[in-house]
Amino acid sequence: MALVVQKYGGTSVGTVERVKAVAQRVAKTKAEGNDLVVVVSAMGDTTDKLLELAYQTARRPSLRELDQLLATGEEQAVALVAMALEDLGLPALSLSGAQAGIRTIGRYGKARISQIRTERVRRALSAGQVVIIAGFQGVNRLSDVTTLGRGGSDTTAVAMAAALRADRCEIYTDVDGVYTADPRLVPEAAKLERISYEEMTELAWRGTKVLHPRAVELGKLYNMEIIVRSSFNDNPGTIITKVDSMEKINTISGIAYDLDVARITIAGVRMQPDSLHQIFGPLAVAEVSVDVIVESRGENLRSDVSFTISEKELPHVLPIVEKAAATIGAGGISSQGNLAKVSIIGTGMQNRPGYAAKMFKSLAMAGISIEMVTTSEIQVTCVIAKDRVQEAVRRLHKDFGLEKGR
Amino acid sequence: MALVVQKYGGTSVGTVERVKAVAQRVAKTKAEGNDLVVVVSAMGDTTDKLLELAYQTARRPSLRELDQLLATGEEQAVALVAMALEDLGLPALSLSGAQAGIRTIGRYGKARISQIRTERVRRALSAGQVVIIAGFQGVNRLSDVTTLGRGGSDTTAVAMAAALRADRCEIYTDVDGVYTADPRLVPEAAKLERISYEEMTELAWRGTKVLHPRAVELGKLYNMEIIVRSSFNDNPGTIITKVDSMEKINTISGIAYDLDVARITIAGVRMQPDSLHQIFGPLAVAEVSVDVIVESRGENLRSDVSFTISEKELPHVLPIVEKAAATIGAGGISSQGNLAKVSIIGTGMQNRPGYAAKMFKSLAMAGISIEMVTTSEIQVTCVIAKDRVQEAVRRLHKDFGLEKGR
Repeated sequence: MALVVQKYGGTSVGTVERVKAVAQRVAKTKAEGNDLVVVVSAMGDTTDKLLELAYQTARRPSLRELDQLLATGEEQAVALVAMALEDLGLPALSLSGAQAGIRTIGRYGKARISQIRTERVRRALSAGQVVIIAGFQGVNRLSDVTTLGRGGSDTTAVAMAAALRADRCEIYTDVDGVYTADPRLVPEAAKLERISYEEMTELAWRGTKVLHPRAVELGKLYNMEIIVRSSFNDNPGTIITKVDSMEKINTISGIAYDLDVARITIAGVRMQPDSLHQIFGPLAVAEVSVDVIVESRGENLRSDVSFTISEKELPHVLPIVEKAAATIGAGGISSQGNLAKVSIIGTGMQNRPGYAAKMFKSLAMAGISIEMVTTSEIQVTCVIAKDRVQEAVRRLHKDFGLEKGR
Repeated sequence: MALVVQKYGGTSVGTVERVKAVAQRVAKTKAEGNDLVVVVSAMGDTTDKLLELAYQTARRPSLRELDQLLATGEEQAVALVAMALEDLGLPALSLSGAQAGIRTIGRYGKARISQIRTERVRRALSAGQVVIIAGFQGVNRLSDVTTLGRGGSDTTAVAMAAALRADRCEIYTDVDGVYTADPRLVPEAAKLERISYEEMTELAWRGTKVLHPRAVELGKLYNMEIIVRSSFNDNPGTIITKVDSMEKINTISGIAYDLDVARITIAGVRMQPDSLHQIFGPLAVAEVSVDVIVESRGENLRSDVSFTISEKELPHVLPIVEKAAATIGAGGISSQGNLAKVSIIGTGMQNRPGYAAKMFKSLAMAGISIEMVTTSEIQVTCVIAKDRVQEAVRRLHKDFGLEKGR
């Protein structure tokens, strides 16, 4: 008897009918002789509606109270899924994050799982119950509900699978799996049968929404295979697993993009050993994700420092940067929105600079200006104008020959 | 500095605007120098909507999962009230029943509070926070959420006030207080300034919806004064307290009615010592509230046994009664709906049979047939046809001279 962890996202439980469909799928997996833990997100747009209520009630709701509020969305969903299963004659038990033993540390709204006490879940499984666990949440040492931030339910599923030493972890979503590029932009995009943790992590960080990078990293850490597939059909999906065989190493696996990009430039920074720390330290404290960082040395030992952040966070981030810039006596600050990142990703590009050059050429041939560049062992990311993204992704997909898969 | 517990019902927090109004009222009480614990019900029709979702999802949702689901309604409300308070600059902390230390025993959906561990609440109060507690819920020894059934939030408020030895407990609702009769039926009904626990308990059991009888009984047990008042104005409300002074004892305090009444009659019951136990034992096990019980001795040592139950429960109760009747070899069962109970209540009637006679005369003069009667020390209840209730209540209110208050 195998132990399977399945995760269903908000779209998959968006209506009562879909909740029932999820129950049918769970029942089928159970009937195949598996023990089953099911992680569920809040139904459809529940979380957005709760956020709306919160911001109607208070100008700046505290993160603790937001977490108390938002967690109810998943708690409702698990109770309904459990009811639907019981209605099919399957013993089921819904658990909140706290009840499922999910302990967290860190800030409200961005908590991290520190430990999972699996006793209750194991007891229920032994009793033959299907266990339905609220995704996206846990409880801290104050017994306060904490949410795990974006991608939280994926993280719950993989963490729970790892803690239970499950045989597999299946992420059900509204797409068939992981594609070489967003099929909405690139009709000829091909579904990947398998992809490595490393590549999937980069795709996810670079904008592919199928699975959150935290969950992928957790899968890699605990060597837990993750299967991404659709909750609306029986197509096989994509397996995220250890690095692929040698033969396939000489390829890239996909193209990702991110439309939520703004650039901040601090001009005339006198470069001293701690200058960059003085700029980026306060941003780290405020938990702002900074991505592409470029420093260009100018005259008189002064440099321009540019970096990208989420465009949504711009109003919140600018005052922090202004204060830091004043502290180090920098020249001035400018910011630019309406940018995007386009990335090529693949373990195949390790130590092969040709991939970056090929990407630059591809974009140049399309007349797309590259504003900033960042590279790592397995990805090259270019910052470009937001309105050129579709063209860029299509062109790169074609030039790298991805229409045949990898 | 006084410690005040306030409870706001679903109507009082029915919209974002009302949540803000509640926050204003709480802030005012706090500004008067009080420590404050606020118990809140689910917003408006949230509970009904969740029930609807549950019954769309499953034909017969389990009580455990229903409790998991319903509890989220109050949990959302407390987070929003806390946010609204923080928005006014008041430190606030929302707590679920579990977080507030409310332990329960008994069945899901009908749990009773067994203990309140007040450490966390006291700590928050000491830190100057207004504590907002989800009404209607607690947690059992399995760490499962349990709901307290009808009137649960009132019970939470009074129990919390008792556990904290609060100086007063205020129940905010959509009416100004307790009236001599329902003002919607009797325009000249007068608001009571004070009423005894005993009278309020009877009024509540007999259909006055202002406050749940469990909460009143808890108030009596712990000698906690309860003030019922409107959340929409500043009128003084009604104080529920120890028995009134001697001078006022010779009066009745109010008239209550209940429109949800059905009668079941078991004919030809051979009366043996355990006959009634055989009938009512299974009903008690099924937690059916049985009210007016009348046994009338017929021929051959056989009796007709009649009693009233909630009309809503009739389909659920009839099979239980049929089984019991068959066991004791009774003659047959009949049932009748569309009944109502009308009650006069007052400590003034203790040992004064004249009140019952006056009530029967009053109803007779109006041509209203009395189907069944039950009396206790402080109330007389008549079962009549549902469509005569308004007339009966008005007539009794007038004949007992209640338009001047008590």
